[in-house]
Amino acid sequence: MEPLYIVKVGGNIIDDAEKLRSFLKAFSSIQGKKILVHGGGKLATKLASSLSIPQQMIDGRRVTDAETLKIVTMVYAGWINKDIVAKLNAMGCISMGISGADAQTILAHKRKNADIDYGFVGDIDQVNTQALLALLEQGINIVVAPITQDASGQLLNTNADTIAQEIAKAMSNHFTTSLIYSFEKRGVMKDVSDEHSVIQQMDAALFKSMKEDQSIFAGMIPKLDNAFAAIDAGVSKVIIGDALELPDLIKGKSGTTIS
Amino acid sequence: MEPLYIVKVGGNIIDDAEKLRSFLKAFSSIQGKKILVHGGGKLATKLASSLSIPQQMIDGRRVTDAETLKIVTMVYAGWINKDIVAKLNAMGCISMGISGADAQTILAHKRKNADIDYGFVGDIDQVNTQALLALLEQGINIVVAPITQDASGQLLNTNADTIAQEIAKAMSNHFTTSLIYSFEKRGVMKDVSDEHSVIQQMDAALFKSMKEDQSIFAGMIPKLDNAFAAIDAGVSKVIIGDALELPDLIKGKSGTTIS
Repeated sequence: MEPLYIVKVGGNIIDDAEKLRSFLKAFSSIQGKKILVHGGGKLATKLASSLSIPQQMIDGRRVTDAETLKIVTMVYAGWINKDIVAKLNAMGCISMGISGADAQTILAHKRKNADIDYGFVGDIDQVNTQALLALLEQGINIVVAPITQDASGQLLNTNADTIAQEIAKAMSNHFTTSLIYSFEKRGVMKDVSDEHSVIQQMDAALFKSMKEDQSIFAGMIPKLDNAFAAIDAGVSKVIIGDALELPDLIKGKSGTTIS
Repeated sequence: MEPLYIVKVGGNIIDDAEKLRSFLKAFSSIQGKKILVHGGGKLATKLASSLSIPQQMIDGRRVTDAETLKIVTMVYAGWINKDIVAKLNAMGCISMGISGADAQTILAHKRKNADIDYGFVGDIDQVNTQALLALLEQGINIVVAPITQDASGQLLNTNADTIAQEIAKAMSNHFTTSLIYSFEKRGVMKDVSDEHSVIQQMDAALFKSMKEDQSIFAGMIPKLDNAFAAIDAGVSKVIIGDALELPDLIKGKSGTTIS
């Protein structure tokens, strides 16, 4: 099957105009079909603060009331998505910006949680690949903002890592899919304080033994559990590494490749 | 050729949640391929005011400085576009929301004007129908926000009426295209103060004679000049009328049909 690259980029890159430009240059240099999933960055928090809309974070997740939903939809699906698209187009990397709501590509439901009410936060039920396939077929790349909707038409704020993973799983029926989590770190490190301890290759057996002898940074375990779940669901590779080294990540010359 | 309906809806409808829902119901009931182009409404002005960003209007056009561009992109391409898309999807009218920047569908340039600097306002150079055709082919409807970009990747605020007209012209090579300007008025009226004076059918000869004997409201003349220009460029029909009577507009039972 033809390769497809699904790249998630984190907020720290988006918040820095210079880093974003370098990252987009690297993304646009990937040959073939590709999808970029972006997070939010600090702009939503800044806008909420300018509008005196109090923001509540629980365990690093934004509690999304009606006013905050408007803000994240405006910032993620509006400014950040269109700014990225316009820059990629100008680099010759013709791209369509969408949210999960568009063409009902991602159907979600409002998170049910007995203990904490996260508000308008979505958990994904289903990915519909129809529009994605039609656009990729035309040589058009896709940029996805982390907003989804439920069946009643309610927009929902949704985790960008999860969106990237669910799109990768759904697309793995059609492509040899690589899922790349790119951020400001160099990969999965044995020792979180040592930049040189990046684990280049990891398979299920190595992960299991490293968990057993506790030779892996505990905070990385849920991310890796997700990566292996994606691979179990048909994704060919998951790569974790530095957003500014994207071409090297794909070649396996940088970051951690999980397969 | 297969019919295509391109509907522009004005800000007054968008600002009123009840009217918007009725309008979207009517839009979703149109059989076959369709594109909705929406304007902005008052939300951008409200948001600018909450953020203490002064807004300057010249002849009804918004002067768009860098901060205002961010606001209109967030409001038009973010909140309004995704809110409409989610509502249409929930009505079973599966729709993709785009701006003119997406897939570089509309390429524009920053308006040059010796007298007035409108800021980041775009005049359209070119419509690229590739993504539109691919999506329509899949049975996916399209919702367009009035933001474009130039070749350098600069986003630009662009008049929604003009976007609807330029898309209609470009699509008329592929479809029998009807361009519908829907708003809160019943059509082109002989006497602007008399709701019952709607002109049902108008052709170039009637328009010419009505201009000569001044039996048409002067404010309507530029709009009609544009409508006839669209028809000269291949658009099959231009219909002007009440957004809430959309199915009747298409049947010629309401509004003014120009052909």
